[in-house]
Amino acid sequence: MPRYKLTLEYDGSPFAGWQRQADAPSVQGAIEAAAERLDEAPVTVQGAGRTDAGVHALGQVAHLDLVKDLPTDTVRDALNHHLRADPVAVLDAERVGEDFHARYSATARHYLYRLIDRRPPLTLLKGQVWRIPVPLDVAAMHDAAQCLVGLHDFSTFRDAQCQSDSPVKTLDAIAVERVGEEIHLTCSARSFLHRQVRSFTGSLVEVGWGKWSARDFRDVLEAADRSRCGPVAPPDGLYLTRVDYPASA
Amino acid sequence: MPRYKLTLEYDGSPFAGWQRQADAPSVQGAIEAAAERLDEAPVTVQGAGRTDAGVHALGQVAHLDLVKDLPTDTVRDALNHHLRADPVAVLDAERVGEDFHARYSATARHYLYRLIDRRPPLTLLKGQVWRIPVPLDVAAMHDAAQCLVGLHDFSTFRDAQCQSDSPVKTLDAIAVERVGEEIHLTCSARSFLHRQVRSFTGSLVEVGWGKWSARDFRDVLEAADRSRCGPVAPPDGLYLTRVDYPASA
Repeated sequence: MPRYKLTLEYDGSPFAGWQRQADAPSVQGAIEAAAERLDEAPVTVQGAGRTDAGVHALGQVAHLDLVKDLPTDTVRDALNHHLRADPVAVLDAERVGEDFHARYSATARHYLYRLIDRRPPLTLLKGQVWRIPVPLDVAAMHDAAQCLVGLHDFSTFRDAQCQSDSPVKTLDAIAVERVGEEIHLTCSARSFLHRQVRSFTGSLVEVGWGKWSARDFRDVLEAADRSRCGPVAPPDGLYLTRVDYPASA
Repeated sequence: MPRYKLTLEYDGSPFAGWQRQADAPSVQGAIEAAAERLDEAPVTVQGAGRTDAGVHALGQVAHLDLVKDLPTDTVRDALNHHLRADPVAVLDAERVGEDFHARYSATARHYLYRLIDRRPPLTLLKGQVWRIPVPLDVAAMHDAAQCLVGLHDFSTFRDAQCQSDSPVKTLDAIAVERVGEEIHLTCSARSFLHRQVRSFTGSLVEVGWGKWSARDFRDVLEAADRSRCGPVAPPDGLYLTRVDYPASA
């Protein structure tokens, strides 16, 4: 059976998350339902990252096997046609080998968290950005965040429901910068713990409004204690932006 | 009675337009209802531009007179509180003199039209950008648009329902450029005819996908004939971004 790699964009707001669920709409379920309408058999879609309820994607990657051998443009357009009732779009479809696995072949995942520090409520960006009603010191947030880079026990920033074997992970990069009216937090790693980026973001906002110093933030990391984490940021502002694979995959 | 100048942001999607209507939701009606809850009397709100149904604003300006003499921060926050069910935000409130009029004192209005040329449907940006499913030649659109600058009879780009006394107006500037994945058309004038920016945009898209040359576009302008206009662009991508006033206003 031919295997296809899909690059996906979605608005996570109406979904209970990426993962298929018996009684709630999911991104995986929506794509599987669309794929079953163009193939002859039930289809399983595997995603690179199991985004939470309300979390968005600009470049999620998934793979699926179809019985039919179809041109990639046909796969993309037919899936988009069947997905038209859902805010999910297939940006690209490629043929890949049987050894390609969206989740296990991935070498890096990249996330973006969008914030706005302003007092007036959001209108056009509601559900897509986290609004903080006081000014944030973005340089202080960026500087404090740098202690996260490298190999650490990230227990502080790990949700209780995390299924990862170990809290010890390597963060490759993190940056916080102003982009127009917004503040963008971007970070990259081979893999992330459950709610790790939202935990980073919520804790860095404590630095941004002056409650915590960079030293406090480092202490919180080094404590490796979930109870020391700042308030976890809401899903609204989080985007899975890109997943990397070996050049051969 | 103290007069307040408001700077407004809104998502135009749920509204029948700026202007108050007896039987449909309007931005003006929503702000008037909010203002009446903080004052003792019916309030009339005057806007700088009467945006159409579905058209958005990042910097609409309006004024209103209140019986109460309130601090400007209180006016902003109280209006936002009463507007919380609507995607309308007061970004700023200022005290102005009685000679200030949001519509008649304005010296320039600035609009943005957002496009994306891509085949996959929109997800997060649905209703906020106009998607064109084929690639657009942005440099050709920008070059063709330059013939619009200056004093012209804009009858071609004027809706039949336009209430302006004359189709002769001066366009101060127009530009078309790529901004990330999007294409932004920006233009500025003292005042615009009804649906003028959407008529410009739809006609420039004919240039962008190669149906019209710059010469064709100039002919269409010079014909001063509404029937020669390209398809009028949908409201989704249009934003009133800024309104200028004399420094003293």
